[in-house]
Amino acid sequence: MAENTALPLVLLAEKFAQLPGIGMKSAQRLAYHVMTMSDEDVKAFSEAVLNAHYHVHTCSVCMNFTDRERCPICEDSERDHGIICVVESPRDISAFERTREYKGVYHVLHGLISPIDGITPDRLRIKELLSRIDSGTKEVIMATNPTVEGEATAMYVSKLIKPLGVKVTRLAFGLPVGGSLEYADEVTLFRALENRNEI
Amino acid sequence: MAENTALPLVLLAEKFAQLPGIGMKSAQRLAYHVMTMSDEDVKAFSEAVLNAHYHVHTCSVCMNFTDRERCPICEDSERDHGIICVVESPRDISAFERTREYKGVYHVLHGLISPIDGITPDRLRIKELLSRIDSGTKEVIMATNPTVEGEATAMYVSKLIKPLGVKVTRLAFGLPVGGSLEYADEVTLFRALENRNEI
Repeated sequence: MAENTALPLVLLAEKFAQLPGIGMKSAQRLAYHVMTMSDEDVKAFSEAVLNAHYHVHTCSVCMNFTDRERCPICEDSERDHGIICVVESPRDISAFERTREYKGVYHVLHGLISPIDGITPDRLRIKELLSRIDSGTKEVIMATNPTVEGEATAMYVSKLIKPLGVKVTRLAFGLPVGGSLEYADEVTLFRALENRNEI
Repeated sequence: MAENTALPLVLLAEKFAQLPGIGMKSAQRLAYHVMTMSDEDVKAFSEAVLNAHYHVHTCSVCMNFTDRERCPICEDSERDHGIICVVESPRDISAFERTREYKGVYHVLHGLISPIDGITPDRLRIKELLSRIDSGTKEVIMATNPTVEGEATAMYVSKLIKPLGVKVTRLAFGLPVGGSLEYADEVTLFRALENRNEI
């Protein structure tokens, strides 16, 4: 924004531009949009930001975001607390819940091991995962992304859990449902072949 | 977001999704990002929103956004106050200022006439434009977008100004600089031919 723009607008655009996936052009558009919002809408937006940040924290059991002490999933006695699905972020939980098939509980690592980005295992919530594994734990499912970091994290965590005598599994690799063989990369295709099932 | 997500996070995502150009997926990502921001950053962001909305208003002369009574351009005695460039929004002023060639002043209409969207001429800052035109005004440049609404607005406003004895001009249509003839649409090409200049 040029120097003829009002300073508070420039500052707001800079704040928007710091958010992920928002470039300077979009940030300017958003800042101008705030000018056209009603007083109530602006107040509500500003309060929503503060509320989310100050009233939401991690569940004391699974590290998912919640505004209570324990999240609804950990509080749910109908779920199988012996099966723990380990994910990278709270967003992944939403993805699993949408399948409506998974009845176990979760554990959020809040990141993946990535030495390049300076994310070492002690920065993740691995300690919290190990401390909640007890005699009632039947299986730990490593559900990190099928990327280098996701694979490395799954391997690292599973090596820590196996000595505890708990079964550790990994999500299946294969063709995406509805996808096309033609567009599948070689590694995916190899994994799909390797993990083929009898029909 | 599923019902297992903390309510303040769901509410924040909904607020983000109300902003222009932000879908539900991006809104969720932004809401989760707020959780990872520091306390100071969240406070600064929230205050930037409120500051922009409450401390920025329209310039009493040209209707551009400013945090003073008159904007820096209207206050600038070195600019030619006899030439008024009429634009749709404050963003357009930034675009003109980047050319560093225009030395006149501006007038922001804050919209374009669009009956379909219920935007009638009285919703625009046309009255304010007419009232600032005086014996010192030499030219009014209609610099609205080359769209149906932009053209209609330029025609409407020019018909109101011409009786005041002031010259009204329109931005030139033609090929975009650096563009390719091959990709120019017929209307643009026709206008470029029609408005050809001797070299």
